[in-house]
Amino acid sequence: MTGLERFFEPRSIAIVGASREPGKVGYELFAAMQKAGYPGALYPVNPNASEIGGLPCYPTLKAIGSVPDLVVVAVAAKLVPQVIKECAEIGVQAVIIISSGFKETGPEGARLEQEILQTARAAGIRIIGPNCIGIMVPSRKINASFGGELPEPGNVAYFSQSGSLLAAFVDMARNWGMGFSKLVSIGNKADVDELTLIRALGDDPETAVIAGYLETISDGDAFIKQAERISRRKPILLLKAGFTEAGARAASSHTGRLAEAETAYECVFERAGVIRCESIKHQFYYAQAFAYEPCPAGPRVAVIANAGGAGIMATDAIEREKLQLAAFTEQTMRILEQSQQMARAANIRNPIDLLGDALEDRYEFALRTVLDDPNVDSALVLLSPHAMTACVATAEAIVRVTREKPDKPVLACFLGASRVAEALKVLRDGHIPQYDCPESAVRTLKVMTQYHAWRNRPKRVVKLFNVNRRKVERIIERHLRLGQMEVGEMETKEVLEAYGFVTPAGGIATTPEQAASIARQIGFPVVLKVWSPDIIHKTEVGGVKTNITSEQEVMDVFDLMMYRIPKKAPHAHILGISVEQMCNTGKEVILGMTRDPRFGPLMMFGMGGKLVEVLEDVAFYPAPLTAEEAKEMLVRTKTYDILRGARGEEGVDIDAIAEALQRLSQLVTEFPQIKEMDINPFVVGKEGVTPIAVDAMMTLEKR
Amino acid sequence: MTGLERFFEPRSIAIVGASREPGKVGYELFAAMQKAGYPGALYPVNPNASEIGGLPCYPTLKAIGSVPDLVVVAVAAKLVPQVIKECAEIGVQAVIIISSGFKETGPEGARLEQEILQTARAAGIRIIGPNCIGIMVPSRKINASFGGELPEPGNVAYFSQSGSLLAAFVDMARNWGMGFSKLVSIGNKADVDELTLIRALGDDPETAVIAGYLETISDGDAFIKQAERISRRKPILLLKAGFTEAGARAASSHTGRLAEAETAYECVFERAGVIRCESIKHQFYYAQAFAYEPCPAGPRVAVIANAGGAGIMATDAIEREKLQLAAFTEQTMRILEQSQQMARAANIRNPIDLLGDALEDRYEFALRTVLDDPNVDSALVLLSPHAMTACVATAEAIVRVTREKPDKPVLACFLGASRVAEALKVLRDGHIPQYDCPESAVRTLKVMTQYHAWRNRPKRVVKLFNVNRRKVERIIERHLRLGQMEVGEMETKEVLEAYGFVTPAGGIATTPEQAASIARQIGFPVVLKVWSPDIIHKTEVGGVKTNITSEQEVMDVFDLMMYRIPKKAPHAHILGISVEQMCNTGKEVILGMTRDPRFGPLMMFGMGGKLVEVLEDVAFYPAPLTAEEAKEMLVRTKTYDILRGARGEEGVDIDAIAEALQRLSQLVTEFPQIKEMDINPFVVGKEGVTPIAVDAMMTLEKR
Repeated sequence: MTGLERFFEPRSIAIVGASREPGKVGYELFAAMQKAGYPGALYPVNPNASEIGGLPCYPTLKAIGSVPDLVVVAVAAKLVPQVIKECAEIGVQAVIIISSGFKETGPEGARLEQEILQTARAAGIRIIGPNCIGIMVPSRKINASFGGELPEPGNVAYFSQSGSLLAAFVDMARNWGMGFSKLVSIGNKADVDELTLIRALGDDPETAVIAGYLETISDGDAFIKQAERISRRKPILLLKAGFTEAGARAASSHTGRLAEAETAYECVFERAGVIRCESIKHQFYYAQAFAYEPCPAGPRVAVIANAGGAGIMATDAIEREKLQLAAFTEQTMRILEQSQQMARAANIRNPIDLLGDALEDRYEFALRTVLDDPNVDSALVLLSPHAMTACVATAEAIVRVTREKPDKPVLACFLGASRVAEALKVLRDGHIPQYDCPESAVRTLKVMTQYHAWRNRPKRVVKLFNVNRRKVERIIERHLRLGQMEVGEMETKEVLEAYGFVTPAGGIATTPEQAASIARQIGFPVVLKVWSPDIIHKTEVGGVKTNITSEQEVMDVFDLMMYRIPKKAPHAHILGISVEQMCNTGKEVILGMTRDPRFGPLMMFGMGGKLVEVLEDVAFYPAPLTAEEAKEMLVRTKTYDILRGARGEEGVDIDAIAEALQRLSQLVTEFPQIKEMDINPFVVGKEGVTPIAVDAMMTLEKR
Repeated sequence: MTGLERFFEPRSIAIVGASREPGKVGYELFAAMQKAGYPGALYPVNPNASEIGGLPCYPTLKAIGSVPDLVVVAVAAKLVPQVIKECAEIGVQAVIIISSGFKETGPEGARLEQEILQTARAAGIRIIGPNCIGIMVPSRKINASFGGELPEPGNVAYFSQSGSLLAAFVDMARNWGMGFSKLVSIGNKADVDELTLIRALGDDPETAVIAGYLETISDGDAFIKQAERISRRKPILLLKAGFTEAGARAASSHTGRLAEAETAYECVFERAGVIRCESIKHQFYYAQAFAYEPCPAGPRVAVIANAGGAGIMATDAIEREKLQLAAFTEQTMRILEQSQQMARAANIRNPIDLLGDALEDRYEFALRTVLDDPNVDSALVLLSPHAMTACVATAEAIVRVTREKPDKPVLACFLGASRVAEALKVLRDGHIPQYDCPESAVRTLKVMTQYHAWRNRPKRVVKLFNVNRRKVERIIERHLRLGQMEVGEMETKEVLEAYGFVTPAGGIATTPEQAASIARQIGFPVVLKVWSPDIIHKTEVGGVKTNITSEQEVMDVFDLMMYRIPKKAPHAHILGISVEQMCNTGKEVILGMTRDPRFGPLMMFGMGGKLVEVLEDVAFYPAPLTAEEAKEMLVRTKTYDILRGARGEEGVDIDAIAEALQRLSQLVTEFPQIKEMDINPFVVGKEGVTPIAVDAMMTLEKR
């Protein structure tokens, strides 16, 4: 544990604001602590009482005479600063502030919170809260909260930015089964935040599953790093609310328009191995499975049911989630065929249909047999309550077999309610995760399978290319100095060239004759583009002409641009006209980056052309990219088929695109001043042909 | 009711196979009937008993001496034919066959089932089953089933192809609240099927909501028609399992490849107003809401919560489901601001946050106020169980306000389990639909809003165009006669022309000079295509050359084709070379049709080009199409924005595409022999420019 021991393993606890009046927070808190049976020393602190709950009450913290490991504060907000000062004076190191009336109420409350924090920081005090419902540590009988009764001890840790949601989760666990290691309501997160917690819980031997509810993430960058490190050891299940918080973001690039708040969270969570939960119900489903069962080693699910309907629904769900219905080995088939128990089963292939008159023995035999099958990674046991169904005995059989064979996950779905209630209790007590429809069970298996694959991915190695960093520095510095946050095509291409990109052949001309001469050298057809630091959107002023096929036409276009553009952009300083080779052979793709305010640079890949933006067939992933991740971004898009040359198309050099993405990733990682970047189009041909960055732009921001 | 009165309102019931031995189906059935308190005459029939359950037992049906309205059969399969014969002899008109051992067991059982059916049909007997668990009619105290205890009477009818699923649904209803009008296990659907039932339940005044579980649909065409008629009056909620049944379908057209079994059900259900349920849990959610609440008149949801977290989750869900967070009127805001109850609320804008210390009065005031707001279509009340929360009193307040203001739906989501259990009972008894997370409640509101919109859509009017039907008949007949199921481009275009489509200008040439002359007349550039009834895939034999710009080139290409194609397709009879105008101005789209084996012709629309197939940005809808439906198909695609001229593109004639879809829809409706059809590309320009069917093919099948 890193620094939170005094919260989670205190030998003594003082409750400031403890009260004898039922209904008051200070009463509920103290009563909950006593009821939990905390074995350490407990000190109620309240100047207006001499005894609370049979214990002597102290007028102040100092009056206790020793230093409590943990102080819980439940007095009015305006009195809290004084309490914290007292804590500092006597050397308290851990404080939970239950009281509300701080940042959440406005500027005055925020000021008060800052004051407290300064005192605490100076004295080395760690604070949980304010504006929270406290913490619970069931294994140590600590209930320093008003979140209800202490739940069972177990291996799930839950932290929450919403106290009531934490209380609701614990209540669900009490009903459907799940034990907890630590429960923390983080409230305003003045000091201890999700980052501190996942770090501490990651190292906590009591905790096997970390789950939490968050509305905001305090430090995105640090969050990714920590979460990624800890996800390798234990799953982190997050319920993230408030996707609409960011609202519409102004973005000047393609990439920026396509990246939304939800996209950012999605790809960052994926990178970090964090499991995103669709609802509190889903979070509960997943947490229960991770708490009780090992992850499936692969996607092959065995389904056992006593009715066709449920089996079909599970099969549909397996197909939709892109898992697989396990194909049993011949040996398994033989065992099932020859067994007496299975003689009356309707179907011994997957999904196994035991028929409506199946008793527990048929279930037990089938489950044991499929768990032994090397082609099976997980088992889903479905039960529909027929008139003769032995629900409780079947639940007992499932518990029995699962204990015998703990290496593969077994999930249960007993349909109905009252008729299976007793059986559900047996499953709960036997630590079998249970689901109210086949679809949620299959979804849970999918999440576990994905997590397992993530945990077993190869070590991430980010390749560093040899680049001309100094040149890019100069270009960016110059623009920032001049306040030019939008960088035009020419300079953006210089930046790209410094990072190993190839741009179209050509040159800058200041006379029509010079333009014609450049064109003759590089060969026709060519493109003419106006070059001016003041003109970012060249097409809008008629500053781009493509497919020019003769020297005469080059000269005509040059003169027309020089005549017309100053009328449309009178203040623009025109430095010349760029003459470029046309890149017609190959496919157009877009490479891009947008810097997410929370998580930093997100790389984007998509097929080129207007359709991409409309169809949103793009992939995002946080930089820096490994070679595998860059490749995976391509594979994610539906258009990948076209790129790799399926469906009668000529394929292109996939590795060249992946390398370009890695180079771009290195550029934006090394230069945090780059806010957005588009290479559009990036023209890529077949293997061996050098891909070309035909057009590009970027925007900067001061850091 | 249409013909099922004797099942649902019998004055006397005989149970053939009634038994005194607990555990036997005949015992369970008879005991369930007696326990339900059926007030009519009940006749146990069993030659081996003289009395069952205190009633005289008859050796045969005839021995009863009068004709029972309903006969329930629970004897071994092989004895059933004799029972049905007896029924026929004495004039019984309604029989439920519980017994299994029929079609579901193989050919021998199927033969037995046919035998029974023939006897029944000849005698005018209607049959439910065989291989089912029976029926229940709570309002008449009929429980002719072994599906468990009779549930509460209510307005939901449930039918199911899986008996155990029906039992599970009833069990859920018992626990979480829902009453039933009729419950029918349809088993093998030998006679009474989903179609008979939805028709009967549609006319049943006791039934307000029809829900069902199906694995197969017996007659797709009739199903659409009936379901569409009945959905106008009451919602039909279907849980359809077995999407993977069809497996991979062989298809030779674009349209066929893109249409999968799931797509077919989706668009057919949508057309018929049928609500498709994602799981049995979702079906329960929806059924409860429809049973208890009116539909929201629009998408504007008011959210009331006592914690920020739940409110934010609801807001996220509303955004994802494309509903709207209601914007309260100024009057509502004034009332909320000035009220004493709301003085301590954190936020009186939507989502309203009443804060953790909110008691029932704050909830009541807020709910009453927002339901009065004309900008609000529905209300979602969220409760998180804080230490001080008055869960039960709040539930009572919700019930009270909802009774007072029954015109807008109110859904509740009380998070947690044990701590809200009492309150959930209050909600259940007060007929307030309740959800275990905000996301399921919002999803339910979405489904209700969509259904309301469907029910209020304008009357469907399918326009009939003036066409040359006779010509198409001749072409199709000729191909069928010759066994040519694939129809080539030329003939398909003739068919299209007969239905008002315009194809590219041009003609057929048999000499190079003739080809050059046609090209001169229609103007360059032109396309040359080989014309042979034996060559369907012209490009594969080098039979297409585009963008030909001179007479000399036309003659060269002509001769090259005549020289090369016979080598590649030696047995093809080449009738000539077609010379066609190139259509370069406009956008390419695909119009298509694939005939679904269950539901008939499904129309397809998508943007042209290879990307469409890869990105699957296409829309399907069953023919025949109305003008609105054709237009709606376009709107559904993401590429619609490009067609209508957004994002800097020049728009095209949307109405012309919609008309083309309607014409194609008329063609495939009038000619059921057309199995698949593609017009690809269909080139459409701006308004006023005639769109052109540039290429087309169709396949036929014998009907």
